[in-house]
This record gives sequence, structure tokens and C-alpha cells, in this order.
Amino acid sequence: MNACLDRIAAREREVKAWAFLDTERAREQARRADERRASGHPLGVLHGLPIGVKDVFDTADMPSEYGSETLRGRRTDADADAVAVLRRAGAIIVGKTATSEFGMYHPSPTRNPKDLSRSPGVSSAGSAAAVVDHMVPLALGTQHTASTTLPASFCGTFAFKPSLGFTSMAGSNVLVPRMAHVGLLARSISDLCLFAGAFDPALAAVQPAASAPRLGAVKGPGWALIDDDAGRAFETFIQSLPTATVEVGLPVEFDHSFDVTFGLLNAHLAYRFGSAPAETIRRYCTPLQRGIEAGRSISAARYLALDAQADHLVELASRLFIDRDALITLSAPGEATRLEDGPGSGVMSMPWSLCGLPTVSLPLLRGGQGLPIGVQLIGAYGHDEHLLRVAGWLENAALSHHVRESAGGTEV
Amino acid sequence: MNACLDRIAAREREVKAWAFLDTERAREQARRADERRASGHPLGVLHGLPIGVKDVFDTADMPSEYGSETLRGRRTDADADAVAVLRRAGAIIVGKTATSEFGMYHPSPTRNPKDLSRSPGVSSAGSAAAVVDHMVPLALGTQHTASTTLPASFCGTFAFKPSLGFTSMAGSNVLVPRMAHVGLLARSISDLCLFAGAFDPALAAVQPAASAPRLGAVKGPGWALIDDDAGRAFETFIQSLPTATVEVGLPVEFDHSFDVTFGLLNAHLAYRFGSAPAETIRRYCTPLQRGIEAGRSISAARYLALDAQADHLVELASRLFIDRDALITLSAPGEATRLEDGPGSGVMSMPWSLCGLPTVSLPLLRGGQGLPIGVQLIGAYGHDEHLLRVAGWLENAALSHHVRESAGGTEV
Repeated sequence: MNACLDRIAAREREVKAWAFLDTERAREQARRADERRASGHPLGVLHGLPIGVKDVFDTADMPSEYGSETLRGRRTDADADAVAVLRRAGAIIVGKTATSEFGMYHPSPTRNPKDLSRSPGVSSAGSAAAVVDHMVPLALGTQHTASTTLPASFCGTFAFKPSLGFTSMAGSNVLVPRMAHVGLLARSISDLCLFAGAFDPALAAVQPAASAPRLGAVKGPGWALIDDDAGRAFETFIQSLPTATVEVGLPVEFDHSFDVTFGLLNAHLAYRFGSAPAETIRRYCTPLQRGIEAGRSISAARYLALDAQADHLVELASRLFIDRDALITLSAPGEATRLEDGPGSGVMSMPWSLCGLPTVSLPLLRGGQGLPIGVQLIGAYGHDEHLLRVAGWLENAALSHHVRESAGGTEV
Repeated sequence: MNACLDRIAAREREVKAWAFLDTERAREQARRADERRASGHPLGVLHGLPIGVKDVFDTADMPSEYGSETLRGRRTDADADAVAVLRRAGAIIVGKTATSEFGMYHPSPTRNPKDLSRSPGVSSAGSAAAVVDHMVPLALGTQHTASTTLPASFCGTFAFKPSLGFTSMAGSNVLVPRMAHVGLLARSISDLCLFAGAFDPALAAVQPAASAPRLGAVKGPGWALIDDDAGRAFETFIQSLPTATVEVGLPVEFDHSFDVTFGLLNAHLAYRFGSAPAETIRRYCTPLQRGIEAGRSISAARYLALDAQADHLVELASRLFIDRDALITLSAPGEATRLEDGPGSGVMSMPWSLCGLPTVSLPLLRGGQGLPIGVQLIGAYGHDEHLLRVAGWLENAALSHHVRESAGGTEV
């Protein structure tokens, strides 16, 4: 805890990863955690670990502002369910990490620790930056479209977005229930497994797959936006792996996945925010105002058609895992964008978020500027444990000399 | 089977309970059922029983027209899931029972067997009429709002509408998934339990509760439409029961349950039917055309607000069963309406359908014209077995001399 708080003190002014910090309370909780350990009491799986929580989760002992000036100073009586799970597992919540307003595609105050002139991605930017910058070993994020995977890729952390329904989202910023996931950020697959073990004990000590998994490489509808250096690094990486990887074409219906995603999202924005007073709406960030406006013109019949399209994509996606352990693709179109170019694009993870599939992002590639780019694994719905095994295998394979040599810029 | 088919032959011309009949096939299946019994093979819980299936379920061996001339002659490759369950249990499907078009509030061809000048209710009219007229002992219906409970009350049958999700509705006319229930119709509670046992073996031999249940009498937002004679019969019945019944006020939010129901329904009608060619829409019954039109003006945001209101009602409804076994009310506002006055009102069951709660209707009352009126029991979500026990107790209590004497017109 002291090491984490020292690191935060040294770096926070530049990185701006935190929306709220309570360092004295964290230190006091760490002291009590030491006492509990000394007393011989049973300990939770995350006992005494400093954790950052994205400020879209309610916390009874800290403000919960969801990144919005319209919620400045907001306090809640209860913790979000996911926060309560972490506390029961013994975690110490150091503070709330910075987020874009209500998790929208809009810059947050956070800078990318790998290059302060670059974006950390959206919207779990503070959580990813805090983890990669060694401010905390673990941080909680969320993902409706790309909000954990994109910052993990830009900042160079590991991330696990579990299957839809992995844990309750009550007490958090749920925009679209069928797309509302937690996201876990850490600096290794084994740390991710320990973190996930707080929610599902079976995951705490998952071991890497012993034999080479059957991987299918997918490009998907976002590949048109991929930077050349990222595409090349991915191809080289795939070829260097000690397993044959077949390219898998996505059904043509996935070409509509962005339209479906934004249609559902905008409809829910109009529902949730559209009845706010006009002066409140004017204070929202531009993407939120535009989403509300676009959502207002969506009819119920159109919404139901979009929802049915999403159901159909879920069904189609389930067939991608016959005789295959996981799909593999990039986590983002390329390296972190410059701050002035916006927070980046979530196209590489949106289809999997829409389908509720578990994904893991591993910071195994480098782009032309030497910045990290994530490799994304996608698993079958509900097979989170199996996906973490595959991710452990991939992490080990990338660490091996063979892969590092042949893939050139690969880093862990 | 022979007795049933003879009864159908004698009465169908007047009652018009059937949309499709295949008597030869039914006789042949009955012969084979006898052979199977003689051979000593294991038998399903409904072995050899003649059953009517509302023509909103797909059947691979009969047309499935959903009561619509726009689907005249429609055939499907597969049975609806619920039909497959019945066949696996050994039931013999005699034919498809008549329904209003797509189950809308619109007359079907069926007449009320108790008085041919009166409506059998909507929309599982054919199923209720066939059961009460001894054409079949059991018939399958559906209920989005009142489609099983209302015809059961008008015709004088017993009916069980299970909790939402009791069985798959795949291959049936699902208008609003959160309101789409099967309905079971029979001539006693024990027959209903046997019937339900095909879907859930635990229900096949449910016994009546041995001790008096704790009942709460509810009137609810539909009570303003109750006929005087029906209201009096209900009050007298309640007072005659050998258990104290406390009147329970519904939370004020239930006053909106009709608006929520029709809003959700119309939105789904616009989604499902609104993109049909104009010449098809013109052939639909008036309530369906009006529903499509009303649904087209509902926004996605409004739909999501209605859906959230429904969630809230579900939550409020769950609290009505603390320290209470079941609620009790009327199944319909009164006796069967005259044919020229339309198919009756579903107000007495709509709130429970919206909340997905299990209900049982028992034909225990008579109105001023000597026609049946149902008593409706409502149970806690998922506690279907307990509700059937309470219903068995109520059936026995009504059969006892005490209740019959004091309630005057009570009949079973």
C-alpha cells in the first residue's frame, strides 16, 4: 500500500488517473488488514490489495460522480454490488479512477502513462493508466463497447472482460443492460485470474492451458480502420505462434454490429437522459448530447428490431467456437492516438461486447512508435475459465524467446 | 378418444371450437397408444389423452394459422416446443382450437357452450369451449393479458396460467416476450395438475393444501368495471370460506398497469406486423390494425420507460406475498358478454400477466343469469406448486356443503 501511494503521489499530477483519492483511509485500512492477517482470521482472496474502482460504480464512502459535473459531489448510501464483492474479498479501495462522462466516447482528464501526449483510450482510462503506471496492481472498469479493451491496449495492460452476467451491475452506470459488463485490469494473466476469483472462486487459480489451443484469427468489420503497422505486427505475431491459426471469416451480419450497437445505445441514452431539464442536457459532453438527440428519433419498433438483430448475432457468434478454443484479433486499430486526435476507436471490441462474449486483451505487440498494442482473445459465452487458460498459454508463448524473436517488436 | 370425437361430432357445428380437426389421425394414434400400453412399454403422464391445442402453436402435422386468414394453410416443419412436450408425455393432439386473429381482443368463431348467444371470451376461446363442452379433457391456450383466464371464466372451466418462463414459447405466437405465457385448461384442479406434470413432473400429483391458506382479497384497478352481481357473488363467497380473508390494497402504481400493458403490446405489434405490405395489414382485424398504428408512434425511449415500469410492478408485486399464500379476486368482470357486445374485458388478469405471476381460475361463482364466473387465485412468482395446492384447497372448500349453501349460487 505504501509503495502504491508513493507512486500515486509521484505521478498523479501528470497522469491524472484518479477522480477521487482517500490515501489516509487506504493506509488505515491496510494497517487493519495487517492486524487481521496477524490475528489468524481467514482472509479473502484479495486481502489487503490496493484497488482502483472506475468512478461509474457507487461507493458508500466516496463520491460517485460518473465523470459528470452534473453529479458533482454525489454520494450514495450503498456500494455497487461489484464493489461490495471486492470489499468482501478483502480488497482496499484506494480511490475512484477517472472516466469520461457516463463512460461516453469523450476524453477523460487522464493521460497515457506511456506517452503523456497520447490518449489512454476510453472510458476506463483512469483504471488502465493506474494499473500500467504501478499505482495499483488491480483496477475495476466497465465495458459497453470498448471501454476496458481500448484503454488496456493503448496503455499496455492486461484486461479481462467477462461474459455478460458475470456479476451484478447494480449500482453502476448501466447504459444498455445487454451490453453492460465489468472489466478487470491487471499486469498479468495470473493477476487477472486472482482478481476474477473475487467474483468466481473457480477462477482464482486458473492455470495456463498445457497444450496449444485451437485459435481462429478474425478481422471483422473494424479491420478497415486498422493502422498498417498494427496489421503487420498482428500478422507476424500470429505466424510466430507455436500453433496453427486459421483465419475465420465473420458472417456478413456482423457488418451491422456497429449500427446495432449505436442504435441500442442511443435509444437507451434518450430514455435515461432525455427527460432531464434542458439546462442539464446542455452541460453534458457532446457525444452524450448527440446520442440523446439521435436516440429520440428511434421508434420502439426500430428498437425491437435492433434488439432482435443483436439476439441473432449472439446466435451466430455461438457457432464460431465449434472445434475452436478462442478467436484472436487486435484489441485496437493501432497505437494510442494523440490527445488532439480524440480517444480512439472501439471497433475491434464492439461486436464481442454486443454479443456478451468474454474477451482478454494482452499487451503483446508494439506499433511503429514503440507504443503497446493489445492482442485480443475472444471466448465462447460463459466459457470464461477456458478463455483465461488460453490467455495464460498465449502469455507464456509470447514470453518465450521464439515468439519474441520472430515477432520483432513484441513486448510483455 | 371415441367419446371425445363423438361429442365433437355432435356439438362442433354449434360451438365452433376447432380451427382444424384430424379425427382419423387421432383415432389411429389412440389405437397405437392402446397397443403401447398393452405392450408394457413405459407411458408418459398424459398417455393417450385427447388434447386440443390453441392454433397459435406450430404443429408439424396440422396447419398453424394463428387465427389469421393471412396465414391460411400455413405449415411448419417443426412442432412448437410446448407441443413437443405434450407429445413426449403421450398426449394425442386431436386438432387446433379456434383463436381470435393472433390472439388479439377480437371475436373468434367460437360460441359459449353454456349459452350459444354469448361470447366464450378471448383469445383461447376454442380451448375453453372444447374443455367445458367435454370435447377434450385438456386443452392448451396462451395468455399475454387475459387470453386463458377470461375464456375460462366465461365458459366455466378451470385454468392454470403458470409463472412466466414455465415452459419455452418457441414456435408460438409470442407478441411480447415478457407477457407470453402458456395457459392450461381442464375441468378440475387435479386434471390441471396432471396436465402441468407434462411440463414439470413435480406438479403431476400435487395434493390440495391440508390447512386453510392465508388469502388476501384484491380488487385492483379493474374493479371499476365489475358487474354488481359478480361483485356481490364474490363478497358472499369470500365470507363463506373457512379461512379469514383480509382485503389487500394494491400499490397505486398498479393503476398504470393497463397503460404499460397496452404500450408494450402496441410497440411489439408495430415491430412484428408494421413492416408487412399495406394490403396485408388491411386484412388484419381492427384491433390489430389499431395496435400497429398506435405502436408506430411509440418511441424507443417511451418503450424503455414502460419496460422499466413493468420491472417496478414485478418488484412491487413480489412484496404482496409476504405472510400470504395467495391473492384472490374475480377472473372476469362478470358473466359472459352477449356476442353482439364483444368478447369481454381482460382487466381482472392483466396486472398478473404483466408481472408474470402464476394464476388459477376456478369456476366457483354464478352471476345473475345463472352463468359461470371464475374466482382467480394469484401466487408468488415461481411458486406454482404452492398455488396449485391452494387452488386444490379452494376447490374442496367450494365443494363442501357449507360454502355452497352460504354462497348461494356457487357451482363447480
